[in-house]
Amino acid sequence: MRRHAIVELLDGTHERWGNNVALALHSLIVLSAIAIALETVNGLPPIFTRLLYDFEVFILLVFVAEYVLRLTCSKHPVKYAFSFWGIIDLMSCLPAIALLQPQWQVVRTIRLIRLVRLLKLFRTSVALDRLGRALTLVKGELIVFGVLSALMLYVSAVGIYLFEHDAQPDAFSSIPQSLWWAVASFTTVGYGDLFPITTGGRIFTSFVLFIGLGIVAVPSAIITAALLETQNTVKPRKNKRNTEITKKEDPNETS
Amino acid sequence: MRRHAIVELLDGTHERWGNNVALALHSLIVLSAIAIALETVNGLPPIFTRLLYDFEVFILLVFVAEYVLRLTCSKHPVKYAFSFWGIIDLMSCLPAIALLQPQWQVVRTIRLIRLVRLLKLFRTSVALDRLGRALTLVKGELIVFGVLSALMLYVSAVGIYLFEHDAQPDAFSSIPQSLWWAVASFTTVGYGDLFPITTGGRIFTSFVLFIGLGIVAVPSAIITAALLETQNTVKPRKNKRNTEITKKEDPNETS
Amino acid sequence: MRRHAIVELLDGTHERWGNNVALALHSLIVLSAIAIALETVNGLPPIFTRLLYDFEVFILLVFVAEYVLRLTCSKHPVKYAFSFWGIIDLMSCLPAIALLQPQWQVVRTIRLIRLVRLLKLFRTSVALDRLGRALTLVKGELIVFGVLSALMLYVSAVGIYLFEHDAQPDAFSSIPQSLWWAVASFTTVGYGDLFPITTGGRIFTSFVLFIGLGIVAVPSAIITAALLETQNTVKPRKNKRNTEITKKEDPNETS
Amino acid sequence: MRRHAIVELLDGTHERWGNNVALALHSLIVLSAIAIALETVNGLPPIFTRLLYDFEVFILLVFVAEYVLRLTCSKHPVKYAFSFWGIIDLMSCLPAIALLQPQWQVVRTIRLIRLVRLLKLFRTSVALDRLGRALTLVKGELIVFGVLSALMLYVSAVGIYLFEHDAQPDAFSSIPQSLWWAVASFTTVGYGDLFPITTGGRIFTSFVLFIGLGIVAVPSAIITAALLETQNTVKPRKNKRNTEITKKEDPNETS
Repeated sequence: MRRHAIVELLDGTHERWGNNVALALHSLIVLSAIAIALETVNGLPPIFTRLLYDFEVFILLVFVAEYVLRLTCSKHPVKYAFSFWGIIDLMSCLPAIALLQPQWQVVRTIRLIRLVRLLKLFRTSVALDRLGRALTLVKGELIVFGVLSALMLYVSAVGIYLFEHDAQPDAFSSIPQSLWWAVASFTTVGYGDLFPITTGGRIFTSFVLFIGLGIVAVPSAIITAALLETQNTVKPRKNKRNTEITKKEDPNETS
Repeated sequence: MRRHAIVELLDGTHERWGNNVALALHSLIVLSAIAIALETVNGLPPIFTRLLYDFEVFILLVFVAEYVLRLTCSKHPVKYAFSFWGIIDLMSCLPAIALLQPQWQVVRTIRLIRLVRLLKLFRTSVALDRLGRALTLVKGELIVFGVLSALMLYVSAVGIYLFEHDAQPDAFSSIPQSLWWAVASFTTVGYGDLFPITTGGRIFTSFVLFIGLGIVAVPSAIITAALLETQNTVKPRKNKRNTEITKKEDPNETS
Repeated sequence: MRRHAIVELLDGTHERWGNNVALALHSLIVLSAIAIALETVNGLPPIFTRLLYDFEVFILLVFVAEYVLRLTCSKHPVKYAFSFWGIIDLMSCLPAIALLQPQWQVVRTIRLIRLVRLLKLFRTSVALDRLGRALTLVKGELIVFGVLSALMLYVSAVGIYLFEHDAQPDAFSSIPQSLWWAVASFTTVGYGDLFPITTGGRIFTSFVLFIGLGIVAVPSAIITAALLETQNTVKPRKNKRNTEITKKEDPNETS
Repeated sequence: MRRHAIVELLDGTHERWGNNVALALHSLIVLSAIAIALETVNGLPPIFTRLLYDFEVFILLVFVAEYVLRLTCSKHPVKYAFSFWGIIDLMSCLPAIALLQPQWQVVRTIRLIRLVRLLKLFRTSVALDRLGRALTLVKGELIVFGVLSALMLYVSAVGIYLFEHDAQPDAFSSIPQSLWWAVASFTTVGYGDLFPITTGGRIFTSFVLFIGLGIVAVPSAIITAALLETQNTVKPRKNKRNTEITKKEDPNETS
C-alpha cells in the first residue's frame, strides 16, 4: 500500500497530494533544460558556472532518488527496469554521473544527452497523446502531400539551379544546395542567404512560389487542422448550435 | 444630476452628446502616442520639436482636467482614486508633469511612461473584452500548445547548436543564441541574421521546419480562431444554413 | 440601335460578338501596363525603346477612338463625359497625349499616370464587386482588429526601441523607425534590415511575436474568409450537404 | 495471358505480387533523382563519381528493359509507343543513352532531361488526380484572384518604384525589378535583397502589405482548401452535423 502510494505521488495521481510532486519534478526538468542551455553561454562569471554545476548535482541526486524509489516501489522492479520509462529514467541520471568526471566534461554531446530528461515531461502528459492521435488521423494525407511537397521542392531546386548556377556559381553550386534555397523559400522563412538574381530565375521563382506555397502549405495545414480537431477548439461553436437544437428537444444530450 | 452628466460625457454614454467627447479624448490619446513617437526622431527642425512640446503641455492639461473632473464628479471620489482606471488616469498625467522638469527630460524611459495613456483607449472599448473572452475560451489549448511549441523550439535550438556550433562559433555560440534562431525561423520571419551553413544543419532544419511549423502555428491559429469565434465572422455562412433548416421547420427562429 | 450595339460591343455584352472586343481592349490594357513597366528598365536597346514608343502611340489611338465612340454613341453624352468611367476613359488618353511632347517625357510620374487605364479593367469585372462586398461584410471586424493590430505594432515598436536603441542607435534610431521593424516582423516578411541583437530585445521579440502574430494575422484572415465567403468556394461541401438533405425531402430544391 | 501479367506487374496491379515491382521501380526513380542531384555537387571523391555513373548505367538498363517489356507485352505496341506514357518511358531512357557519349556529358541541361523519369511516379499515383480535380474545382476562383493578385503586385511594384527609385537607383532600378520585391514581400518570404529605406516607401509598404496579404493569400488558400476538400479531412466535422440533422428524422443512420 505504502509503496503504491509513492509511485502514485511520483506519477501525480495521489489522492491527497494530487500532482504536486509530479509538478515539482516537471519544473525541475524544465529548470534543468534551462541550466543546460545557459551552460553553453560563453563568458559566464565563474560564480554562475559553479552555481549551475551545483544545481546539476542537485538535479542528479533528485533523479537518482526518483529512479531508486520507482525501482524499489514498483510491483515488478525488473519489468520496470526494462520498460521504456525505466530506461528513460535511468538514462536521465547516467550521463550526468559521467559528467562528474572532469575529463568527460569537455565532450559537448555527452553533456547534452542529459536532455533525455525532457522526455519525462511526456510521461503523464496528454499533449503527446493528442499529437500522436492527430498524426494517426491524417497519416495518409500527410504521406501523399509530403511526397508532393518533396517533388515540388526538388523540381524547384532543379529549376533554380539551371537558372542561377551560371550567375551565382557559389550560391547555387549544386542541386542539393539549391534544395536548401527551396526549403527556406517555400516555408516562407526566406533567410536571405540564397536568392535568385537573374531575370529568368526570378520569373521562375515567382511562378513556383505561387503554385508551390499552395502545395507545400498543405502538410502544415493538415497537422494544424488535425490538432485542432482532436482538441475540439470548435467546441464553443458546436455548443451554441447544440443549445439551439437541444433546447427544443433533448436538454440532457451531451455531445 | 449634473455631475453624473459630466461622467457620462467623459465615458461617451451621454444621451445628447453621445460619444463625441469620449471620441475626442481617444483621438487626443492617439495623437499623443504619435507625438511621443515623433519626438524620438533625430534631427527634427527646432520649430517642430517646440510644437511637439507645446502639444504635450496641451494634452497634459486636458488629462489633468479630465482627472480632476472625474475625481470631483464621481459619487465616491476616494473609491475612484484607488480604482484601476483612477490610477491609470493619474499615471497618464504624472510622468508628463515630471517631463516639465528640464533635467528629467533626458531620461527616455520616464518620457515613455506617458504611453500608459494608451490603456485609456480600452476604457469603453469592446475589443479588449473580446480579446479577453477569446483568450479565456482557449486558455487550456493555448497552454498545452504553448508548452509543446516551447519544447519544439528548445529541441530545435539544441539540434542546430550541435550541428552549427563548430562551423559558426560566433553565430551559434550557445543554446540561448540558437533559441533566437529557432524563434525567427518557426515564426517564418527569417531575419537572416542566423542560418545554418553545414549540410547536417540544413537537413536538420528542413526536417524540423516542416514538422515544427505545424506545431508552432497552432497557438496563433487558436487565437485567430477564437477571435473570429467571439465575433461571429462566420455569421453569413451560419445564416445560410439556418435558412435552409428553418425554412422547413421554424421560419421565425433567429440565431 | 446601331449606336447602342457599339456600346454593347465595347462593354462586352453584344449578342453576337460577346465579349471579344472587350477582351481585346482588356488585353491591350494589360499589354500597355507591361510596356510601361519595361520602359523603366535601363539599358534597353534603342530599337526596343522605339517599339515601345510606337506601341504606346497605337494604344493611345485605340483609347482615343474608344473615348470618342463612347461619347458619340452614348444616349446621354454629357452625362457620360462627367460620369466616373467617362473621366477614367478621358484620363487614360490625356497623359499619353502629354507624353508625346518630348520635353514632358522625363517626368516619370506623368508617364505613370497612364496606369489609370488599369482601372478600366474593372469596368465589367465582377472581382471588384466581390472585393467590395466582402469588405463591406466585415467592415466592423476589420476596424476593431485594425485598431488592435495598430496598437500591437506601436507597443512592440516602443518596446524594441527601449531594448535596442542603445545597442543599435542607427538601426533603431527612433520609434517610427522601430515601427518599420514591427511591420516587417509581424507580417512575417522579415527583410532582415532590422533585427534585435540584445538579449532583452530578443526575449521581448519572442514574446510579442507569438502573441502578436495571433492578433495581426486576424485582419488578413478576415479579408480572406470574407472573400471566400462571397465566392462560395465552399460550394462543393454545401452541395454535398444539400444532396443529403434534399434527397430525403425536396429533390427539386436548388440553393 | 502471360504478357498481360507482365504489364500488370509493371503497373502494380498484379494479383499475387501486388505493387511490389511498381514500388521498386518508383524507388529507383527517386534514387535516380537523388543521384542526379548529387552529381552536381563539386569536389566529390572520384570513387563516388564512379559509383554514381555505374548506378546511372544500371538505372538506364532497368528503364530500357521496362520500355522493351511494355512495348512487346502491350496489346497494341504501336498505340503504346505513341501514347503519353510510351513517350515518357522512351524519353527517360534516351537522354541517358546520350549521356554515355563522353562528349555530351558536359551539357548540364541534357543530363537533367533524365528527370523526366519523375513523371513516371505519377503513372499510378492518385495524388496527381486529386491535385487535378482540386484545381478543376476552383479554376474560376483561381483565375479571378490570380488576376487580382497580379494587379496588386503590379500596383505595389509601381508604388515602391516611385518611392524608392531615387533613394536606391540600383535596387529599385525599374518596375520589373520592383515586381521581384513585390513577389518576395507578398509571399512573406522576404529575402532581404530589396527593401524600402525611405519613409514614404516604408509607409506605403506597410499599407499595401496589410491590404495585399489578404488578397495575395487567397489563391494559396483556395488551393489548400480545395485539396483538403477533395480529401475529406473535414470528415469528422461533417459527421457531427449529419448526426444533428438525421437525429430528427432517422436516428439510426450512421454516415
